[in-house]
Amino acid sequence: MHVLDLTKPDGRPLTLYGRSELRGIDDAPSPFSTPVAATAHLRWHPLRGEWVTYAAARQERTFQPPPEYDPLAPTRDAQAPTEVPAGNWDVAVFGNRFPALSLGAREAPPAVVESRPAVGACEVIVYTQAANGSLGTLPLDHLELLIQVWADRTRRLAADPSIRYVLPFENRGTAVGATLAHPHGQLYAYPVVPPVPLRMHDVARAHHAEHGVGPLQALVAREREAGTRVLYDGDAAVAFVPACARYPYEVWIAPHAAVPDFASLSGAQRADLARALKTVVLKYDGLWDRPMPYVMAWYQAPLDGDPHPEAHLHAALCPPYRSRERLKYLAGTELAAGFFTMDVLPESTAAELQAVTVDLASPA
Amino acid sequence: MHVLDLTKPDGRPLTLYGRSELRGIDDAPSPFSTPVAATAHLRWHPLRGEWVTYAAARQERTFQPPPEYDPLAPTRDAQAPTEVPAGNWDVAVFGNRFPALSLGAREAPPAVVESRPAVGACEVIVYTQAANGSLGTLPLDHLELLIQVWADRTRRLAADPSIRYVLPFENRGTAVGATLAHPHGQLYAYPVVPPVPLRMHDVARAHHAEHGVGPLQALVAREREAGTRVLYDGDAAVAFVPACARYPYEVWIAPHAAVPDFASLSGAQRADLARALKTVVLKYDGLWDRPMPYVMAWYQAPLDGDPHPEAHLHAALCPPYRSRERLKYLAGTELAAGFFTMDVLPESTAAELQAVTVDLASPA
Repeated sequence: MHVLDLTKPDGRPLTLYGRSELRGIDDAPSPFSTPVAATAHLRWHPLRGEWVTYAAARQERTFQPPPEYDPLAPTRDAQAPTEVPAGNWDVAVFGNRFPALSLGAREAPPAVVESRPAVGACEVIVYTQAANGSLGTLPLDHLELLIQVWADRTRRLAADPSIRYVLPFENRGTAVGATLAHPHGQLYAYPVVPPVPLRMHDVARAHHAEHGVGPLQALVAREREAGTRVLYDGDAAVAFVPACARYPYEVWIAPHAAVPDFASLSGAQRADLARALKTVVLKYDGLWDRPMPYVMAWYQAPLDGDPHPEAHLHAALCPPYRSRERLKYLAGTELAAGFFTMDVLPESTAAELQAVTVDLASPA
Repeated sequence: MHVLDLTKPDGRPLTLYGRSELRGIDDAPSPFSTPVAATAHLRWHPLRGEWVTYAAARQERTFQPPPEYDPLAPTRDAQAPTEVPAGNWDVAVFGNRFPALSLGAREAPPAVVESRPAVGACEVIVYTQAANGSLGTLPLDHLELLIQVWADRTRRLAADPSIRYVLPFENRGTAVGATLAHPHGQLYAYPVVPPVPLRMHDVARAHHAEHGVGPLQALVAREREAGTRVLYDGDAAVAFVPACARYPYEVWIAPHAAVPDFASLSGAQRADLARALKTVVLKYDGLWDRPMPYVMAWYQAPLDGDPHPEAHLHAALCPPYRSRERLKYLAGTELAAGFFTMDVLPESTAAELQAVTVDLASPA
């Protein structure tokens, strides 16, 4: 992995990653010239016992720009800079222009609930220079590089003692609010372990204490043995519709072994996770012959300095559809109670996805 | 409150409620003739430590019927029965034809995760005979009756030892997936305390132990004193955009005093909650001169036989918009991490709603 660190004219960091040596790239462009305002703050939600971030500047953010403008494509004209330079990079990472969390956050206005500066980081991860395509159309070694990038971002952010959790995720498609079609993901670094990973951590720790293995390691073994819902099972990684799916086409991707984070992956595990990820996205897009919208998140162990034998790196991909034409709306019971209702069985959607054939060797 | 219990030809219960005596209503109609299948089951999500319900029959449920068919309007033609009869009732409650939870659930297929029958109840609450309108256009004494109905449903369902939590809610508008425009809500009775109320209960209990009051009672006092975000403040109830709102136009409604459930409300509290609720919905619909979509949920104490001095009955109304034209999408950080980001300050949306004038006396 080749790495080049640059700074944009508005002060935001840009890191370029390449499979081959990065040459002749001098400048980090930006469509913006003024410095980013680190004005977000957190407020405590005293009923749910969680933090909410308030970033009023975000309301003005870029929204569905005209199709001719792609801020994530390499800059071709210095007079119309995008977020990334020309050059032979494969993956680019830069600070979000409208961050909900900032390492520079210093102030929080007083409120009737506890408040504090919204310390953290919001990064944009450009998967490729190509304006079209997906994680399914990238070559496998490009996906392996992306997994290395997630590891490198986590390592860098974890070095800041204010960061407690790093979550790479992707919002794909307008159905989940994505504003740019260029293949990209995001990464949030939080100053706390957020509610969902915190709950998962507590549950996993209790399971590990009782059974000697984490709950995902136990489930992976049972799902692989059953095979009914498995979409990919390689040397070191598996992808499956979990028996406990909360979304009809939900898929999890995990190494067979309980690895706590990206940094702990072996080369063989990384390579097989790339195959699993490519398989899932190709199956999604093949199912209805159109790009499948989804929210993808990669869960790692909390950054608290403790060992995490109960933690098990994995991705959850959750498409918002319950059939080709029907969205799954989250409403009363899901949002207000946290109790999910499923209209279809995971066995049935898994069979649909199993029937989609994919070619991992494409593009040649 | 006048009450009439009936049974539909397909076996589902129907209860009619009236402000005046109910006369001359003999039959409970149903658009369906075959019995409801109580085939849903629960599966344990071993990573999140929560139950998910699987009701495959729901996929076939009524979806956006043609505008001329309103299954929640009184039956006019015995050859084309709706869900409710003609007569002088004000509010009707019946069992959902496609329940995600059923008191009759008896079986659960084996799965690679723990499974159990989906015991519980899913009820539809028809707010009025009128096909149009809202909680804002009903007279105040009709809203008071509705609050009594929520109390009566809770009391009846709590009598079943398998029920641990009762949640009345409303999904309003196609933006949150509502399939029928006729003013109505729903009620789920769960065999467990669902994840969100469970978390709120744990947080409230810890707060009460430390401070001697529950967190909502403390917040209500501070919000009323500040006034900045208050939309209604009467003799016994208050409505406000909470300082910790997770949705731009989120509003909470609560009695001033920490009442654990609907059954514990005094007549004066019920009357003032009706005024607060009517105020909020009229302000919502006046803000952009169109019906505001929202998810409304009313939180009560868990049904575990213990006293709940920490519990504080309240409603949270969460519209899915962040401005007139823009939806607030829930995506990576909200859904995958449970960490909410706000683009606007609650102070700002509260000021917008405060500026909308309402007439509680309408209709005369």
